[in-house]
Amino acid sequence: MLLYLIRHGKAAAGASDAERPLTADGADEMRRVARRLTKLGVAFDATLSSPLVRALETADLLAEAGIAGAVEACAALAPGGTLDEALGEVARRHARGAERVALVGHEPTLSEWAARLAGAPAGSLELKKGGIIALELPDRPPFEGRATLVWLTSPKLL
Amino acid sequence: MLLYLIRHGKAAAGASDAERPLTADGADEMRRVARRLTKLGVAFDATLSSPLVRALETADLLAEAGIAGAVEACAALAPGGTLDEALGEVARRHARGAERVALVGHEPTLSEWAARLAGAPAGSLELKKGGIIALELPDRPPFEGRATLVWLTSPKLL
Repeated sequence: MLLYLIRHGKAAAGASDAERPLTADGADEMRRVARRLTKLGVAFDATLSSPLVRALETADLLAEAGIAGAVEACAALAPGGTLDEALGEVARRHARGAERVALVGHEPTLSEWAARLAGAPAGSLELKKGGIIALELPDRPPFEGRATLVWLTSPKLL
Repeated sequence: MLLYLIRHGKAAAGASDAERPLTADGADEMRRVARRLTKLGVAFDATLSSPLVRALETADLLAEAGIAGAVEACAALAPGGTLDEALGEVARRHARGAERVALVGHEPTLSEWAARLAGAPAGSLELKKGGIIALELPDRPPFEGRATLVWLTSPKLL
């Protein structure tokens, strides 16, 4: 199974942290990333997003490009969510046939999760806004420490 | 200091393993990668290559694009070379002012070195032919287990 960890794009100030929207530039950059992913043949069978506006907007732009299907808001991807909770959500989608799952969320959480999945120390990966980490997970749990890092990209690279 | 680990492009058969040249497609792909790196503003202050033909040809294509300067053949990057030897070569270039060093070589060596530098287990990174791993190294040794992974890309992504 392929797991894509996607950090939200550049965000503006908002009435609260949960309500910060993408900036116009941030949204444009995510549209460009989505077009590149489309050209690369990347698509997701399930797309879970942090319920925070900047993450939901990022996931929605991927969905608009036709690569993300229906976006599901997922509390485990909000700041403070745990890797165990997130992997539980991933495992449930995998059990229903999803082979390519995208999680749209925040730093430092996503790069810490990627490091734990690959068996690397926290802080050993850098994930920029709009960046993507792709990991190949083993077919069955446990996933932690057993994943292979396939991509680590910034939006600029794509 | 930024360390770029670059796997040689697709190679054909040769009179011996050391003499295998890039295929025409492999060379074209490396030229395209070199152009993309140029556009991204990536350049190297020092470029060390495995002395095997397919690696030297890969490094030469980066040099032709104007991003790699003079290519130095380096025995430590041949199959069987060790990370300690390679880091010794990197440290010598860094002492002479190089802040961006590229090592052009082979698998599984390069991804194992990247994993050790980032503190991750061997086999936790996948590096395709013509792929690039970029690591931010601390300013002084020891480097092992203290690097941050910045990029992991295949030529297709670039």
